[in-house]
Amino acid sequence: MDCTGGNWILTQEGFDIATAQAFEGLFTVGSGTLHTRASLEEHFADCPQDSRELRRPANVTAEKFVHAPGRWGTFVPGVFGHHPLLLQEMINLPWFLELTPVVDGERLDLTASNVQGFRRTLNMRTATLSRELAWQTKSGKTLRVLHERFISGCATNLSVQRMRIECDQAVELTILGGIDARVTTNGFDHFRLVEIRETAGGVTCRVVTDAEDTIGMETRLTADGAVWTYGNAERHGWRQAVVTVQPGRPLVVEKRTAVTTSRDPASTTPAAVLDCHAGASWDDLRRRHCAHWAGEWERADIRIEGDDESQIILRSSIYHLLRAHVPGDGRVAICAKGYAGDAYKGHFFWDTEAYLLPFFLYTAPEKARTFIDFRIGNLAEAQKIAASYGCRGARFPWESDADGRECCCEFQYRDHEIHVTGAVAHGVAHYFSAVGGVAQASDAAARLAVETARYWMDRIDYRKGETSPSILGVMGPDEYAPITHNNAYTNRMAAFNLAFAARVGRRGGATDEECAAFARTAAALPILRSRKNPELVLQCEGFESLAESRFDEFWADRKGCYAARVSQERLYRSKNLKQADVILLMAMFPDEFTDAEVKAAWETYLPVTTHDSSLSAAIHAIVALRLGLFDEAWTFFRKSAAIDLDTDHGGAAQGIHIAGAAGNWQVLVLGFAGMRTALQSNVLSFNPKLPAHWTKLAFPIVWKGTPVHVEMERGRTKVTNRGSQTLDISVAGRIARVAPGECGEW
Amino acid sequence: MDCTGGNWILTQEGFDIATAQAFEGLFTVGSGTLHTRASLEEHFADCPQDSRELRRPANVTAEKFVHAPGRWGTFVPGVFGHHPLLLQEMINLPWFLELTPVVDGERLDLTASNVQGFRRTLNMRTATLSRELAWQTKSGKTLRVLHERFISGCATNLSVQRMRIECDQAVELTILGGIDARVTTNGFDHFRLVEIRETAGGVTCRVVTDAEDTIGMETRLTADGAVWTYGNAERHGWRQAVVTVQPGRPLVVEKRTAVTTSRDPASTTPAAVLDCHAGASWDDLRRRHCAHWAGEWERADIRIEGDDESQIILRSSIYHLLRAHVPGDGRVAICAKGYAGDAYKGHFFWDTEAYLLPFFLYTAPEKARTFIDFRIGNLAEAQKIAASYGCRGARFPWESDADGRECCCEFQYRDHEIHVTGAVAHGVAHYFSAVGGVAQASDAAARLAVETARYWMDRIDYRKGETSPSILGVMGPDEYAPITHNNAYTNRMAAFNLAFAARVGRRGGATDEECAAFARTAAALPILRSRKNPELVLQCEGFESLAESRFDEFWADRKGCYAARVSQERLYRSKNLKQADVILLMAMFPDEFTDAEVKAAWETYLPVTTHDSSLSAAIHAIVALRLGLFDEAWTFFRKSAAIDLDTDHGGAAQGIHIAGAAGNWQVLVLGFAGMRTALQSNVLSFNPKLPAHWTKLAFPIVWKGTPVHVEMERGRTKVTNRGSQTLDISVAGRIARVAPGECGEW
Repeated sequence: MDCTGGNWILTQEGFDIATAQAFEGLFTVGSGTLHTRASLEEHFADCPQDSRELRRPANVTAEKFVHAPGRWGTFVPGVFGHHPLLLQEMINLPWFLELTPVVDGERLDLTASNVQGFRRTLNMRTATLSRELAWQTKSGKTLRVLHERFISGCATNLSVQRMRIECDQAVELTILGGIDARVTTNGFDHFRLVEIRETAGGVTCRVVTDAEDTIGMETRLTADGAVWTYGNAERHGWRQAVVTVQPGRPLVVEKRTAVTTSRDPASTTPAAVLDCHAGASWDDLRRRHCAHWAGEWERADIRIEGDDESQIILRSSIYHLLRAHVPGDGRVAICAKGYAGDAYKGHFFWDTEAYLLPFFLYTAPEKARTFIDFRIGNLAEAQKIAASYGCRGARFPWESDADGRECCCEFQYRDHEIHVTGAVAHGVAHYFSAVGGVAQASDAAARLAVETARYWMDRIDYRKGETSPSILGVMGPDEYAPITHNNAYTNRMAAFNLAFAARVGRRGGATDEECAAFARTAAALPILRSRKNPELVLQCEGFESLAESRFDEFWADRKGCYAARVSQERLYRSKNLKQADVILLMAMFPDEFTDAEVKAAWETYLPVTTHDSSLSAAIHAIVALRLGLFDEAWTFFRKSAAIDLDTDHGGAAQGIHIAGAAGNWQVLVLGFAGMRTALQSNVLSFNPKLPAHWTKLAFPIVWKGTPVHVEMERGRTKVTNRGSQTLDISVAGRIARVAPGECGEW
Repeated sequence: MDCTGGNWILTQEGFDIATAQAFEGLFTVGSGTLHTRASLEEHFADCPQDSRELRRPANVTAEKFVHAPGRWGTFVPGVFGHHPLLLQEMINLPWFLELTPVVDGERLDLTASNVQGFRRTLNMRTATLSRELAWQTKSGKTLRVLHERFISGCATNLSVQRMRIECDQAVELTILGGIDARVTTNGFDHFRLVEIRETAGGVTCRVVTDAEDTIGMETRLTADGAVWTYGNAERHGWRQAVVTVQPGRPLVVEKRTAVTTSRDPASTTPAAVLDCHAGASWDDLRRRHCAHWAGEWERADIRIEGDDESQIILRSSIYHLLRAHVPGDGRVAICAKGYAGDAYKGHFFWDTEAYLLPFFLYTAPEKARTFIDFRIGNLAEAQKIAASYGCRGARFPWESDADGRECCCEFQYRDHEIHVTGAVAHGVAHYFSAVGGVAQASDAAARLAVETARYWMDRIDYRKGETSPSILGVMGPDEYAPITHNNAYTNRMAAFNLAFAARVGRRGGATDEECAAFARTAAALPILRSRKNPELVLQCEGFESLAESRFDEFWADRKGCYAARVSQERLYRSKNLKQADVILLMAMFPDEFTDAEVKAAWETYLPVTTHDSSLSAAIHAIVALRLGLFDEAWTFFRKSAAIDLDTDHGGAAQGIHIAGAAGNWQVLVLGFAGMRTALQSNVLSFNPKLPAHWTKLAFPIVWKGTPVHVEMERGRTKVTNRGSQTLDISVAGRIARVAPGECGEW
């Protein structure tokens, strides 16, 4: 991955089939509503996208995917289908990017053609993907090809493409472009019906999925002097034109595609979308799109001076977070691969609240609201799930589809990672804290708090001879420790959930007695300590009785995942953490643990933590900063930051690690800038710990409705109040009052 | 289930579609080499056997099967194919029993025809299935139909059927009979190729499976005066004849079918088998078959006087054990459903050694030898499995196919029920003890002992701060306690295995030092006791810290499986045992525990044991007898004994609970007769504890090569030495020497 080309631009220099999928994921463009992986417009020969194979439920950490040079991906959040083994999964929709030049019978193909000067750039500021190359045809002609592509940030159902071709001599050029529905998702065909027809000037495609969703697509192609004919084959329809291109007179082909689904209002048809913008030129559409993205960045950009590499990495994280959020739609959240791949089946996990929420909550709270609405909207399903486990109340699914159904196939996660329910309640409480105060939680939110608390009350066991409650048989975020008792993180999240319900429970339908019981139980749930060292918080009962880890024997080079080197059986009986639950606990509740306790945890768990989870490094960076371990913090930050950009080692091939991207933001804002969350502090507080070589760190924050802008330099912090209310702000422990429009300095 | 009709005969009076599958399983006939479920010769209309559905890996205890009135089953041990999800599974072969009468266009069909006097009997003494009924046709004619069927115990590839039809008036009768390959196994088609052709007088079928096994079948039909035409459709070929039957002149149709596979010598073709017996009449074939079975029973029958019901139940157990054993073939063992159903996919489990072996070992040791050969033959595959877990040595698969491959799809069993390896070594040691002495173990057996011991040495962990070895992260036979530490049963079996290897290890390739290490480790493996009550052997670490069971809340009626009432998640965190590991441990090693210890275990585990496993009750009966709990022993015996005969509650619908059948034998011989195994005693010993209403219990035993016959009456025991060597025999602690041909009395 070459990060040159400006701090807004990700660049791919030269084409390498080995990294093609990684760039497809990394260069995904989207509008929230519609996303496309950055497949090449002309695709590859012999790379069918409709292969059938039975993908089995498996541990994704160590799973091997079917290899292909490229993988199309067209995703509309919320469009799920039923897979016979993987349950509900996000459907990979028909591919509409096709735009292929053919000269003298030779089709441009990066795996076969003579191509020079391949360069592709993602301009993150404008969310626009561009590609240029020189193609020397077998017939001896040279063509310069330039592609540009964006999905409109304003007209979010609309994809806009342009191809510009110049040549060194007269060329009879054939252009093909259409819609290709020969697409399976994880090897499965979710299309019950596919109709492809020609329309005036284009191609239309109607798909009915196995979940009875209807997908409409229409594409229109234009080029000066082109006369388009129509061609079609099974599940593929295209327009074709033959144009003579003269040297010095480039040909420009435009392709606009609109995609609508039965999740849109009935009046939003693809044709209507295209018609609506028919009068707008490429430049018009692009100008509006860029203005939209400028506004997005204005509210979210983090500026780092003195470190171009960190700057561009952070912008990549923020770009994908902004792209992946579905504006104003509380029926979905952001899936684990950020709508840039189907590997995690488009499911929503606990990181929705634990990792993604803070970025939105402190940059654009109205976006964060959709996450809360999403969970509240699925409360009834969560009640059904609780009942299926013989429990009262509501239990959220480990892997959720848009309808809140449990989609996890593997019982050890599905049945035992019950901490997701605590994360949901924590997210709801966090949201209301950050926008005003927990007491302002809506009635529906209070009801969610009560129903989840009722689940915990039922899920808790009182063991013979013990008076304190226990939560038995759980898996914490550390997925290498299955079915353990009194996991520290899970217990604390359950206690948080119960305490939250105790506070807002009356409005959520609980009696005073019930609320009192919630509060009592919350206070009684144990966080275990080591007998040998009372300062050491134990991940779970019996943690110290596990087998010693054997990294030096099986993982001496520390390359790749530890899980790929040993059997799951060994993982499950040994002290080897995928990520450290106790470190995460201390990152989320920093005030509840002394420095000595954090240090004891750090020294105990770090040597046995594999960081096989992409969620691990960011949290470790934050806790390292608390401990003053700046070198370690930096190393963890860069480890977390690099993952999607590391195209040489897979990177984003299966999709964006979107929770990791949000983790990067957390390292910057909660770590280096030392901001305390609204759950941790009533006052906006910072405690800057900037890396030595950074000359400036600047970012916007919204605190309880008031937008501020923060600028930190070495030894100096300025916070500008851009809102309409005076705000108390604390930096490194010193509080100042900052009036609207003014700038506080520390 | 009606057990009238003599102590050798199981009877089905009247036909009920609801119990059809249970009788299909219970009335399975077979020769070891070839088995057929007792499907009706004319089958049912609208009951296709080639439906396609994706059976998923699931917990069989609580699994729901696709419902159909009947389920064909034609099984040849060792014929496995590859299922995309279930891995290797035994293939359900083409069905050859078809023999259907049609009168005036009406096809006999038990679900549609007017049938009176339906009566079906399995004569266990002769391993012959008979059926009679009166059929009143819609055209007003009455036919008496009698079917008989056996698979020759002498010519084990040969099925012999006969149908006799009488009528009350002249009838033009159409007879259809052929081979039907429209069969799937667990909803999957394993037939890569099916060829069906006519032959002189019959139909032949050649199937090539997806594992490249070739199955040959040929069927020939004969009936006086019949002219047979040939018909075929896809995967179904048949002969058809129209015969006029006159009152008083019954028509007899004979159908003989031979089945061979690529497991047979190449010269054994179906035609050759049929030709070889072509000169033998029905009576000839039947006489030889009956003589064979008479010999089988001579060596295995248990006679119970004073209790006809127990008598017939025991005979049913023994019948299926005799039927299911493949004579002289160490390439296979007996699958979990006794070749009477495909529900457990034809896999071999730990019960091969723990439950099945003793019956064969003490009635026909040369049959037991095939079990030992089976495991020894798969040692190389077991080494591969150990390596796949990062361990040296050999680790046997939880679910084995004929090639010793791991076929279990669910990790909690596959990865964690490592006690199977101990059971294999225990079985080998038991075999050699019973036929002479452990020291006489063959070199190959010694090598198995060493390789399995090496696995244990590597699988063992030494935890920080502890000097004793631990076996961490296992599931014992109690499958409701996943991933626990130092399971008492598993530790003891591992110690047994290590001690066995220490004893025979030099011949198995181990050094003296290695053998000494085996012995040291065996002695050091802990059997944990409760801190509160040192007489209580703990199932595993932390057993007392599990949640209390909640039977009264979720299972007040105690009907069906507890596992069907609660979530697996609840099972996994609670004190609810599928079967009791500690009770099993004490049954296998009775001398290592005091009566007080056995009593403490009984009182602790019994109240929380669900007996959801069919293996549980028999072991509890044996231990109850030790404790002098005669009423409890009787209840457990009848619970164990009834399972396959309980046709009203499923019974053998999915196949015979063959390990349970062997458990019944163990209750009789090791329990009521109080015999000690060759691992427990060097002297043949009995300690009779007969139920009060039994007037006599008599059975044959082979002890270290010497056959004896035992007769117990109340207060009197006689043992006749039928061998050629003098034998010391102990009854109730009193030893006597019994010479060949003599009868000792106590």
